[in-house]
Parts: sequence; structure tokens; C-alpha cells
Amino acid sequence: MSDSQPSSSDVLARVAEVLESRKPANGGDPAKSYVAKLYSKGDDAILKKIGEEATETVMAAKDARAAGHSGSEAGKLVYEVADLWFHTLVLLANFGLGPDDVVNELARREGLSGLEEKARRKEEG
Amino acid sequence: MSDSQPSSSDVLARVAEVLESRKPANGGDPAKSYVAKLYSKGDDAILKKIGEEATETVMAAKDARAAGHSGSEAGKLVYEVADLWFHTLVLLANFGLGPDDVVNELARREGLSGLEEKARRKEEG
Amino acid sequence: MSDSQPSSSDVLARVAEVLESRKPANGGDPAKSYVAKLYSKGDDAILKKIGEEATETVMAAKDARAAGHSGSEAGKLVYEVADLWFHTLVLLANFGLGPDDVVNELARREGLSGLEEKARRKEEG
Amino acid sequence: MSDSQPSSSDVLARVAEVLESRKPANGGDPAKSYVAKLYSKGDDAILKKIGEEATETVMAAKDARAAGHSGSEAGKLVYEVADLWFHTLVLLANFGLGPDDVVNELARREGLSGLEEKARRKEEG
Repeated sequence: MSDSQPSSSDVLARVAEVLESRKPANGGDPAKSYVAKLYSKGDDAILKKIGEEATETVMAAKDARAAGHSGSEAGKLVYEVADLWFHTLVLLANFGLGPDDVVNELARREGLSGLEEKARRKEEG
Repeated sequence: MSDSQPSSSDVLARVAEVLESRKPANGGDPAKSYVAKLYSKGDDAILKKIGEEATETVMAAKDARAAGHSGSEAGKLVYEVADLWFHTLVLLANFGLGPDDVVNELARREGLSGLEEKARRKEEG
Repeated sequence: MSDSQPSSSDVLARVAEVLESRKPANGGDPAKSYVAKLYSKGDDAILKKIGEEATETVMAAKDARAAGHSGSEAGKLVYEVADLWFHTLVLLANFGLGPDDVVNELARREGLSGLEEKARRKEEG
Repeated sequence: MSDSQPSSSDVLARVAEVLESRKPANGGDPAKSYVAKLYSKGDDAILKKIGEEATETVMAAKDARAAGHSGSEAGKLVYEVADLWFHTLVLLANFGLGPDDVVNELARREGLSGLEEKARRKEEG
């Protein structure tokens, strides 16, 4: 990522803010906002999208590989994964959760926090 | 997230590093590493996991809602979404892509990147 | 199933006939027929539906269990499985395949054909 | 299907019988039977398999198309759809439902059941 681009942290936090602003309590309008409309339909509509986007990720990966991993097909794969992440963030927002929760869970698994991480670095170093 | 915790940016970048280190060319050993084993099985094994984790995310969300969104069920939901994100990162790594690509795509959609976004509008316009 | 109802064999064969009649070569019109429209969009549109219907089956099963397996929720589960089977039949039709191929594969597994079945019955008896 | 092969009706009914016989109440043993083991794990294990088999169906279809719809790839597609149908039948059995319920729902949609269909139209009309 070049210096002028926002960090992952900024972007995911910003997406979470936007999702928060689309909630009915914050004035989100189902007639104007895709996300507000998803919230108004409820969990099942969001989950259906997650199933759909997971399927599209699978298809995009198969296409990318069949195309010899060419640029445009790889772009499609990134696009579908972004769609999938986006809809999981909508789901989490609907449960009062956000990207930090996912990132903390990933950090926990990778043992990035504190002493455990130091120990691992020593081992690996 | 508390100050002592790593930022999203750090964590996703660190996960990507670990995934990179598990590639055969970098000494990843299918006998010792889950990710190295997934790489050795190829795209389909990774995609199967994505389908599975998407399904588990759906089930965890239904359970969390049925449980009145209690703490432990919400934790399960976060756990499954982290699993889903993790396996999409393994998939992307297998295509030479990474979390920055997803994050940049999300930033692009949200129009977060200042001048770059304006440039895009000009191009598209 | 009561005597007056059609057998599985009849129904699946009839569904296959209808799907065949919706192909462009047989005059299927995307403007009038849902299936003809799916064919015209191609494999990916059909596969996306399969991912979606599988997700809806998962949600319906969770709902049916949470509702204590009440009548209407069970009906919803049957409805979603029928949707899933239907779209797999559209997919197969798009590949020149049909329900007999699936049923024959199931029969093969259950060892229903000929000597193998007799052998199994002996073992089990 | 040749004359010597069982009809769809027979096969699906036979699969349903086998699934019934694998229930704990009927002596199904999780240590010996794959299906009995699935029942013992509960709905979520079965649903996870449905998500997995739906994903494998998607991959098999992409492979079959990329391979120019060759014989062996088409065989793989049939195999995966049979896996998917099989696990939906396990799910239905776990809810006291069976293939007839799915087939009747498909028949209802196609308006196949003669007088019954006419009766329904009257009711609804």
C-alpha cells in the first residue's frame, strides 16, 4: 500500500462507522441506503447475501485459476472477497459487533498480544 | 480496541506474513502447518473451507439471535467470521493477493481515498 | 404418499421435461419463463441460486428447530429443500443431465442394483 | 434409465428407509454408520455438510464447464449433486420428513396432481 492510501485499520473502522450511521436509530433510510434496507429486512436477508457472496467468491477463484490467474480475473476475486467481508460487517453491525472483534480474534489466534508474541518471536528468531 | 492492542492494519499484515511464510517456497511444511497443508491440497480444499465457514457463520448468527444475542453466542459468531476471513486470506495468498487488496477495494467503494477517488470519478465520468 | 398422488419418479421426470422445454432450442422465452431466463444468464446465475438456496435451507432448519419443529416451520424447510433440488435440476439440465443421473448415483451407493444388493441383504439379514 | 434399474421412486424411498434404520431408536450405531454418526452430532453437523456439498457442486460445475463438459467432469458433477441430495435427505429424516415431502412440493409447483391441483386452484381462487 502506498503512503497516501489509508491503513487497513482506518478503512475497516470507517466502514464500521458508515454501517453504524445506516441504522434506523441513526437515521438510516431503507429507501435511500442499501445497508439500511438490509437491516430493515433483518438477519436472514444479510445471511442470504453472505451465502451468495461466498458462492461468488468460489466461482471467481475457479475463473481466476482457469484464466491462468490473469489480472482482470484476479480483480474479480478481490471484488467478491470484499463483498463477502462487507456483508459479514453488516451482519456484525446488526449484532452490535464490528471489525475490531474479528481482528482481535485473529490477533488472539496468531498470538500477537504481549508475552505470547514475544515468546514466539524468540522461538522464530 | 485498547491502546495496548495491535491495530487492524498490523494484525491483517501479520496474518498475511504468516500465510506467506507457510508457502512451500518459503519452507512451509504440510506435515506441521495447517495452512501449508491447505496450500498443498490446492484451491478446492481452500474453497471448500470457505463454503463451510460461511455456513457456520450463518448457523452462529441464527444461534446468537435465538439465544437473545447473549455473550457466548456472540463470541461464537465473531469466531466463525474470523474463520471465514482467515480462509479468504489463505485463498488470496494462494493467488498472490492479500488483505491490502481487499481493504483497498473497500476503501474504493467508500470513496475514502481523497484525490485518488476524485481521479477515478473523472476517469469514469 | 397416497395412491392418488404421482410417484417420485413421475414428478422428477415431469420436472425434467419442463426444464427441457424451457431451453432456447425448444422455444423457451427468457421474457416469460424464470428457468429460460436462468439458462440465458448461464451457469453462474444458476450456481449463485444453489448457494443461496443451500443457505436458505440452513436457515429454515435452524428456524424449524428453534420453533420446536412446528408444522409451519417444517413446511418452510421442505419448501427450501425443494427450491434447492429444483435449482440443481436446472443446473444438470444446463449440462444435458437429469434427475435419473442423480437417482442412479444414489442407487449405486446404496447398492440397490442386482447382485451387490443381494449380497448386502444377505449380510444385513 | 434402463428397464432393469429401479425407478426414482423406489430409490428415494429406499434411501429414506436406510436413513430411518440408522436412527438411534432403530439401532443405528454411530461407531458403524456414517449417517448414525451425523444424527448423533445433530443438525449443525448435517447443515455444515449441506454447505460443503453445495460448494462442491459449484466447483464441480465450474470444472465441468472448463473441461468442455467432458464425461468424467460431468460424472463428478452428478456425484456432488447426489451428495447434496443425500445430505438434505439426512436433514429431513432428522426432522421426521422425507423425499415424498420434497417431491410433493415439486409436484404442487408444477401443478402435476390432476384433480388435487384443480381443487387447490378452486380453494385459492
